[in-house]
Amino acid sequence: MNYETPLFFRVMKYADAADRDVVDMVSGNPDWEPPEALRAGLREYADLAPDRFQYPPSEGLLELREEIAARRSVDADQIVVTNGAGEANYLAMARALERDSGEEILLTDPVYPYYPGKTTMLGGTQSYVATDDEGQLDPEDIRAAASEETAAIVVNTPNNPTGAVYPAETMRELVAIAESYDAILVSDEVYDHYDLSGRFASALETDSTHRVVTNAFSKSMAITGVRVGYAIFPPELVADAESRHMLVNVATTRPGQYAVLQALRETGPDYYERNRKRLRERVETFTDALDAAGAAYTRPDGSFYVMARFDGYPGTLENVERLIDEAGVAGMPGEAFGSSRAEWLRFALVTPRVEEAAERLATFFD
Amino acid sequence: MNYETPLFFRVMKYADAADRDVVDMVSGNPDWEPPEALRAGLREYADLAPDRFQYPPSEGLLELREEIAARRSVDADQIVVTNGAGEANYLAMARALERDSGEEILLTDPVYPYYPGKTTMLGGTQSYVATDDEGQLDPEDIRAAASEETAAIVVNTPNNPTGAVYPAETMRELVAIAESYDAILVSDEVYDHYDLSGRFASALETDSTHRVVTNAFSKSMAITGVRVGYAIFPPELVADAESRHMLVNVATTRPGQYAVLQALRETGPDYYERNRKRLRERVETFTDALDAAGAAYTRPDGSFYVMARFDGYPGTLENVERLIDEAGVAGMPGEAFGSSRAEWLRFALVTPRVEEAAERLATFFD
Repeated sequence: MNYETPLFFRVMKYADAADRDVVDMVSGNPDWEPPEALRAGLREYADLAPDRFQYPPSEGLLELREEIAARRSVDADQIVVTNGAGEANYLAMARALERDSGEEILLTDPVYPYYPGKTTMLGGTQSYVATDDEGQLDPEDIRAAASEETAAIVVNTPNNPTGAVYPAETMRELVAIAESYDAILVSDEVYDHYDLSGRFASALETDSTHRVVTNAFSKSMAITGVRVGYAIFPPELVADAESRHMLVNVATTRPGQYAVLQALRETGPDYYERNRKRLRERVETFTDALDAAGAAYTRPDGSFYVMARFDGYPGTLENVERLIDEAGVAGMPGEAFGSSRAEWLRFALVTPRVEEAAERLATFFD
Repeated sequence: MNYETPLFFRVMKYADAADRDVVDMVSGNPDWEPPEALRAGLREYADLAPDRFQYPPSEGLLELREEIAARRSVDADQIVVTNGAGEANYLAMARALERDSGEEILLTDPVYPYYPGKTTMLGGTQSYVATDDEGQLDPEDIRAAASEETAAIVVNTPNNPTGAVYPAETMRELVAIAESYDAILVSDEVYDHYDLSGRFASALETDSTHRVVTNAFSKSMAITGVRVGYAIFPPELVADAESRHMLVNVATTRPGQYAVLQALRETGPDYYERNRKRLRERVETFTDALDAAGAAYTRPDGSFYVMARFDGYPGTLENVERLIDEAGVAGMPGEAFGSSRAEWLRFALVTPRVEEAAERLATFFD
């Protein structure tokens, strides 16, 4: 088969093995606290009766689906609780490819590398539409690339790796394009709690039988390891997605669902705002240093990432490894995200040592 | 797509909605306590630092893989920690179908219904080999059914639904047959801790590049809802299975892995023996009542189930629903497991009310 294994793991291993102190800006693992109610939920779960340790409903605990449904203004029956956004995207893309309405998946360039990997695994083919220098996607470019062969258009907003947040018009247009080619828009909104622009628009705002929204609590609650996410399907598409979920995973981990439910109910907006504030400060610190180093970069409107370009230092794996060894900063090679950002490096702002990393970069590129 | 959705959920819903008290013997959810160390592990996890809430290694926590490897006498690198045995079987069957060595999956009749469902989902075709009245599988029947088209032979020992435990010769022969047709033997051994016969033999006992063993802590630790299992691959097959696991689920839930690791380390053999003793007593109680009711049945050598046949009362969904309404006992229709047991009903001995259920059945069929 030979799926493209994301490079994350290779870079992280290289950084771990380095013979010096390295600031890890590779992966999107938040370094901040999960909600206190999440911890409390796990503690509570540990003392429940044995029957609460057994299979939850395959599609997810009803109370959790109802909490999500209320927040997203959808019906609980449209929701499948998944093993993180990873499984949610897998279910959505599989569903799109099974409709006998094309085998092509339209992706953006740069792209989150799991999407092309999933496409290959599911027997589809990838086509790419380039975003502009700011990471914005022109719906007309998507329309020009789409055809009867298009099974799905997969987008991610706020975007990893560009930090772009697509405006409401873009999202509406993407849904309309999916409708005109009988394709499915898959909108991965896992960074929705890290919209720094105030302009985030969910694909859910456009009612349609042709869009699936995926999400997870991995980033919003800083619990990427707990593995609780969800997909919201149109009523017509949910039953088959539930079957696949059951046949692959049976159900999503119950202690995780229980703890997330408690945390959803008991965590106020201040928790999420505190995390955004921290991220905003890190963006300032890091981009100030990039300015000082004379690097080109895009100021992110959301998500955890800054892409930067240093003259004469393209975003190859080799250069990333050299930066680990010689500067003590680990980022991701831009080439991992597609050809359009091959000159760039991606840095994840999920370390308290952003300032130190920025100084190291400024010194290295001085 | 239309995968066959297992009937479990439908029967459980019917029983829940019944207008009377019903003893639930539908699904294989243990009703006994998880190990105390499992609960303690979850409590401990709740207080760990934020970085312990982030992605574990995709293939599983190294310490957990090492604990499993030591117990199974394999290399930790051969192990993928999965979202229960459900995902382990999915990965193993997908791997077998991707080798370009056939598209047929050989299954037993009766069969655990998830296997044919997974086969359809993965684009394979099912063939069935009947077991005998005791649920034993004659390897010569498998050899006669196998061909160059065979991608995998999937077996389950101790067996759900028959309770059969395949002897070591059978397991050796199944591996040999897989080798001769360049197929993969997938041996699902999730009930290995509930071998009541002392004759359980793992497929791991036969060294081969053509067998994958799947398992989980769901049954052995009475935690079907936590979703931690594993698959043991030959070294040649593990990398692609890891890729699929990463692309579908990213990783398996970390609090679950952490708690299972603690429980593996700290739970003595008395815990598992206590559970077997309880099961043995329930088998006695239940089969005594079946004798009294004049039913035919197979005394299980392992797993949680007793299949019984009542004259003139075939194992249809309709008859199962009538038994719920009129006797207050919920079982599974034999026809859900294939044509060979269409006359039978399956009862799961995972309720403290086995004696009451047995009496109700005796009265109903009197």
